[in-house]
Amino acid sequence: MPTALKPIPISRRAQNSVGPIGQLMSQALKHPGLISLAAGFVDNETLPCEATAQTLTRMAANSQLLRQALQYDTSAGSMQLRHRLAKWAYRNWPDVDNVSPDRLVLTAGSNQLLHLVAEATIDPGDIVLAASPTYFVYMGTLRAMEARVIGVQADENGMCMQALKQALDRIVASGDADRVRAIYCVTDFDNPAGSTLSLERREQLLSIVKQWRSKHGRLLVISDTAYQELRYEGDELPPLLAIDPQAADFVIEAGTFSKSFSPGIRVGWGVVPESIFAPLLELKSNIDFGAPHFSQLFMNEILRAGEIERHLPVIRQHYQLKRDVMLEALEAELRDIEGISWRRPKGGLYVWLVLPAEVDASEEGTLWQRATDLGVLYVPGHYCFPAEGEPVQRNSIRLSFGVQSPDRIRSGIRLLAQAIRQELAL
Amino acid sequence: MPTALKPIPISRRAQNSVGPIGQLMSQALKHPGLISLAAGFVDNETLPCEATAQTLTRMAANSQLLRQALQYDTSAGSMQLRHRLAKWAYRNWPDVDNVSPDRLVLTAGSNQLLHLVAEATIDPGDIVLAASPTYFVYMGTLRAMEARVIGVQADENGMCMQALKQALDRIVASGDADRVRAIYCVTDFDNPAGSTLSLERREQLLSIVKQWRSKHGRLLVISDTAYQELRYEGDELPPLLAIDPQAADFVIEAGTFSKSFSPGIRVGWGVVPESIFAPLLELKSNIDFGAPHFSQLFMNEILRAGEIERHLPVIRQHYQLKRDVMLEALEAELRDIEGISWRRPKGGLYVWLVLPAEVDASEEGTLWQRATDLGVLYVPGHYCFPAEGEPVQRNSIRLSFGVQSPDRIRSGIRLLAQAIRQELAL
Repeated sequence: MPTALKPIPISRRAQNSVGPIGQLMSQALKHPGLISLAAGFVDNETLPCEATAQTLTRMAANSQLLRQALQYDTSAGSMQLRHRLAKWAYRNWPDVDNVSPDRLVLTAGSNQLLHLVAEATIDPGDIVLAASPTYFVYMGTLRAMEARVIGVQADENGMCMQALKQALDRIVASGDADRVRAIYCVTDFDNPAGSTLSLERREQLLSIVKQWRSKHGRLLVISDTAYQELRYEGDELPPLLAIDPQAADFVIEAGTFSKSFSPGIRVGWGVVPESIFAPLLELKSNIDFGAPHFSQLFMNEILRAGEIERHLPVIRQHYQLKRDVMLEALEAELRDIEGISWRRPKGGLYVWLVLPAEVDASEEGTLWQRATDLGVLYVPGHYCFPAEGEPVQRNSIRLSFGVQSPDRIRSGIRLLAQAIRQELAL
Repeated sequence: MPTALKPIPISRRAQNSVGPIGQLMSQALKHPGLISLAAGFVDNETLPCEATAQTLTRMAANSQLLRQALQYDTSAGSMQLRHRLAKWAYRNWPDVDNVSPDRLVLTAGSNQLLHLVAEATIDPGDIVLAASPTYFVYMGTLRAMEARVIGVQADENGMCMQALKQALDRIVASGDADRVRAIYCVTDFDNPAGSTLSLERREQLLSIVKQWRSKHGRLLVISDTAYQELRYEGDELPPLLAIDPQAADFVIEAGTFSKSFSPGIRVGWGVVPESIFAPLLELKSNIDFGAPHFSQLFMNEILRAGEIERHLPVIRQHYQLKRDVMLEALEAELRDIEGISWRRPKGGLYVWLVLPAEVDASEEGTLWQRATDLGVLYVPGHYCFPAEGEPVQRNSIRLSFGVQSPDRIRSGIRLLAQAIRQELAL
């Protein structure tokens, strides 16, 4: 569209807000032929169609409930669902008494909650610490707000607490202690690395933060539990709020039904410290007046009827199978190549793959093109590394076994292995 | 909860984000005894329960559609609904050929669209011009982003174009021309003043903006059509995109089903100039990955089945009746008091009431307390005035006839009149 008019400039935030997610999402949806091991979507096959049909039919017959669902509710969301969630999300930790519906806010997915928390607490130049690698979409949000995200060394047990202490010490030494705002953790089967913060580290994390707060004040923990319900082996670990009653003062615990039930319904939540609850709601009132009430009452019905308890074992079994298929395929296709390693996640949707140091898995490298030419899509791992702190590993890849069928996972890994062998000239 | 820890500081944006909406909304919902003429809600009685029940039942029987609705879609939203909306929203202006589904984005209510547009284009210190008074929630959003909102004189035909020119000239004279980003208009039956931008002014607005753009570049028009479908008399006026093909380069036209169908479903949209479409989507991807897909496909079904065409005449008739009741009650209760005036809106949900100059209708004045003591709630008008430009009228009130029944509207106006008479010692 040729025009003589000058272009419209975009805001600093928009300029800082260029990430891969939109592009990857629409690429995956547009090219069903391409085997996408990129998208962190849940798979179509196990979406709870029956439970949904039954619940919609029940709702359709209840005009009082419908009327409620069609109306606005408060910015914080349906009090019915908040009451139910405050119990349900901590159902395995009955001793928890620091989770009140009054500090629980409902959002359109947990992503909106994470965004609001950043919006309410981050000014340009403020510091957030995160595992290296970490969830790239949230890093995009923080980067758009001109936060400094500092990466902390992490392994299969999540963020290393010794490394966290050292990172904090370095920040103090550089005179930036008053800019530290939050530590961001995906506690269980994290995105992208599939690792889970061990109980010992959870306890250490809370203790480190309490020490920091008694000295410097001002430090939150943003605990993202998006994948918590997707555990395929081992015992569940307590969420941070279940470990220490005082954690309620500084821990935000974010959850969502997008992975455990349906992303199209889009109900997430956060348990938020009293000190930021009101400002967060003010921001939310400006943005959306409250997330869709219909979705909230729908999820309330799903919980009330026990549908989620029936659905969880189904998807756990299903994803466990697909995880095993991916791990077996990696074993069969890549085990013999020197310098390649991957993690065995106990849950979630992701496998983190590290290639020999000389391979550039980013879009600028040749592997990406080879892989898409062969017909397989992955998330280049470099997106998941904070700009500061631990070095970026351009030889890394995030694989997801969420969307594809076992057969396509096998084919996808075979094609990826082929691309890697070409790349390494093997 | 006593604690020795230092408080968590909130961001500048959160500090700047204190508005009345959350408080007013929850007050109105919590005290059903109080007659709220404050909330801009739609009424419960005419919510489309039957159409919804039928549509949900139909969806429940269509497992393919359900599966789709339960899954993610793209950040821009369902292409099916975008195609349908690009036609439906301009159905009375068949000549419009500048509205492409490719530039249409679906949001959780139009409020989210307005927020995203500001986010994509506004940096601290940037200038937005708006009618004085204007929609206070959006001013809250802009203020949180540290925009300068400059109020332009307005009357029953909306923003005065002569005054807009003068305001722009003053900005040029003060050397701030390069900070001007947007003109915000609620085109039809606006919130709060109930006024509609006349056709002549619509044309003038487009011409003024084109002149500005040829000289200074960088100027958008944010056209908020939230109330467009709620017309009770007179002929429909063309939306800005229908007036001038070139408007597509600089006009954002935002619409919503929150007033015309249901706020609990929360589907809004915006037709966005190509130049800001991609940055806006990047921001949206970070915030929510796309608004709830279920709601989008539900509204697609509602449109497909013609349910909205059946629903609109019902609510138009219903709200027209309530508008007339409010206007009659004002006439009966307040006409004899000198210095009181109000506007007769041709649509929408609001009546703008201006009291004698000496009355302070804000929460700091005594009228507010008298009114709530007597049992009636209103929106103090001062919230609706930009900080710069036209002076704030603290003697103004926004009344809504959306929620209450005719009887309660009559009672509410009677109580309000009583409070005003007490205030004026009549």
